[in-house]
Amino acid sequence: MSKSRIKEFQESREKLNQIVMKYAGANTKRFYNIDWQAYNAGTLPAKTKELLGLVASLVLRCDDCIMYHLIRCHEEGISDSELEEAFSIGLIVGGSITIPHLRRAWQAWDEMQTEQSSGNAANK
Amino acid sequence: MSKSRIKEFQESREKLNQIVMKYAGANTKRFYNIDWQAYNAGTLPAKTKELLGLVASLVLRCDDCIMYHLIRCHEEGISDSELEEAFSIGLIVGGSITIPHLRRAWQAWDEMQTEQSSGNAANK
Amino acid sequence: MSKSRIKEFQESREKLNQIVMKYAGANTKRFYNIDWQAYNAGTLPAKTKELLGLVASLVLRCDDCIMYHLIRCHEEGISDSELEEAFSIGLIVGGSITIPHLRRAWQAWDEMQTEQSSGNAANK
Amino acid sequence: MSKSRIKEFQESREKLNQIVMKYAGANTKRFYNIDWQAYNAGTLPAKTKELLGLVASLVLRCDDCIMYHLIRCHEEGISDSELEEAFSIGLIVGGSITIPHLRRAWQAWDEMQTEQSSGNAANK
Amino acid sequence: MSKSRIKEFQESREKLNQIVMKYAGANTKRFYNIDWQAYNAGTLPAKTKELLGLVASLVLRCDDCIMYHLIRCHEEGISDSELEEAFSIGLIVGGSITIPHLRRAWQAWDEMQTEQSSGNAANK
Amino acid sequence: MSKSRIKEFQESREKLNQIVMKYAGANTKRFYNIDWQAYNAGTLPAKTKELLGLVASLVLRCDDCIMYHLIRCHEEGISDSELEEAFSIGLIVGGSITIPHLRRAWQAWDEMQTEQSSGNAANK
Repeated sequence: MSKSRIKEFQESREKLNQIVMKYAGANTKRFYNIDWQAYNAGTLPAKTKELLGLVASLVLRCDDCIMYHLIRCHEEGISDSELEEAFSIGLIVGGSITIPHLRRAWQAWDEMQTEQSSGNAANK
Repeated sequence: MSKSRIKEFQESREKLNQIVMKYAGANTKRFYNIDWQAYNAGTLPAKTKELLGLVASLVLRCDDCIMYHLIRCHEEGISDSELEEAFSIGLIVGGSITIPHLRRAWQAWDEMQTEQSSGNAANK
Repeated sequence: MSKSRIKEFQESREKLNQIVMKYAGANTKRFYNIDWQAYNAGTLPAKTKELLGLVASLVLRCDDCIMYHLIRCHEEGISDSELEEAFSIGLIVGGSITIPHLRRAWQAWDEMQTEQSSGNAANK
Repeated sequence: MSKSRIKEFQESREKLNQIVMKYAGANTKRFYNIDWQAYNAGTLPAKTKELLGLVASLVLRCDDCIMYHLIRCHEEGISDSELEEAFSIGLIVGGSITIPHLRRAWQAWDEMQTEQSSGNAANK
Repeated sequence: MSKSRIKEFQESREKLNQIVMKYAGANTKRFYNIDWQAYNAGTLPAKTKELLGLVASLVLRCDDCIMYHLIRCHEEGISDSELEEAFSIGLIVGGSITIPHLRRAWQAWDEMQTEQSSGNAANK
Repeated sequence: MSKSRIKEFQESREKLNQIVMKYAGANTKRFYNIDWQAYNAGTLPAKTKELLGLVASLVLRCDDCIMYHLIRCHEEGISDSELEEAFSIGLIVGGSITIPHLRRAWQAWDEMQTEQSSGNAANK
């Protein structure tokens, strides 16, 4: 995902979450709260937690969840080969049914990496 | 969903079902028939049955099925808080992987409720 | 399930939950807490909420979860035909892959109902 | 599965289905009926239909359903290598999460084949 | 799917697979390799294997996977009634939650069949 | 799991895998091979890979797979709090439907830890 696509993804997600919160009862609000806290660095670093969220999202085959954690992995500085090793575990556990999601995930990752490196080049 | 989006959803669904029926054998036709009858009011009211279909669709994470039952819930006069309590059970049983579906569902519901209340206002 | 099997099920569940709590961090404890609260009567009666939990458990095919909600449905006084209508929605949404779970669920229900009615007879 | 284990499996299944039928409403009965008819030979031979049911049961990971279709595949005279090719598709589509089910399925198949060939030898 | 839509689907798939391969490690490459080989004719004909892949994809509810195998089924000369019998097994095993996927699949199949027959007519 | 239960689990698994290999074709053998290699230390340490396999197994709700990775996590020296943080992500992503699996997993882990610490005490 290019930076503009990431921004669009995040703004749309934020806007819809506000609609959820408009109607949310106490349990839904608490769920959102622990969902947020579970990925904070603890004994496991945030990077590992994001990889866990990413692979769980891959084997359950949820594109939105994959994209969210992929952006977070990028922010945490996960490398191409770390991502590939995590994804290969998801692919093997979850089977070829995960491949369409993997394709879209790698396309998004490739855009992030390409834009970053051209941005780095432009900054020199 | 606005009334026009609901209409579009229902017409597209109807058109595709006609293609299914063009090819359907006896078992598929019978399946469609019992799928239709299962939600008729019986010992349980139609309203409860639609909530059951809705929560089953949420935990199995099927947007089309969620939208169908959400429209039916609206027709049955289910309230915001009834919907929220049902959705919170789906969220807790099915986990955060259901959240993208919840977001789209609440957005659709919000449109239905907003249009209805502005329609009511306009009628006064 | 006979009363003795229900008791055994509940005691085993309780014992294992204590092991979970021995290790549980704040997020897991909070999750357990909202999982407990979600089924309390609210705008929807407890009976409807248990049926929602039951059908969600059926389509996700978790025997332990089905048994838990089935016992709760029995406590809430749900009738045979209410249960049947809820299960038939789960069967149609979730398909024949749910049938082994339905078989075990009806067997447990049949035991509960048989014991209850013979108990009632004995009390007369 | 040995012949005695197969018989036990089938009798237990039959006994539980009778409990389901004791409570079943019209929709559940119709569902059972189409579930039965869907595997009858049609344009596709019964053998192919049983393989379809088997692989669907494998990727959805239901041991009871796998055992049922495995026994039917055996009755239809499916060969070891036909079974292996079907299972390998299920394994690749569904991933390593299917392996525990594959293990139990091959163990059951091995028992059926071993008993059959020793039976054949005994008959000579 | 019309021929142009099929071509578009295949080109997009190919383009994304190239991005996957840009990053793929040895395990991912081997997975792709066995995924490719599993559908080659063996003891089971390619036609049966494509139906197995199709029904597995239907019950796991992956549109991209369904479309891929549907195109392959068309290439293998599978008839309308063979497809219908396979799909009816998927529908019964997987339940009504598969119906939105069935609708899209039959629409795509109907386009392929319609274009083919009008193409045949035009060639006379 | 006590050491004797772990040994029993591993021996049963090994015995059944030998039956799978008795029938396995080339694709199944290759699948087993990459399944084995995917968890070897690479850019990501073995410990992280086992946690990824564990959480993927939890959200897909496969007890055998969970037990396998749990034993491996124990061998890799993962701590109680690392495990708890990983499990809490699985619980939140996958929902309360994972709880019966979590209960069995923590029971097994508690046995491993208890036996280990009493073993350590005995060695002093």
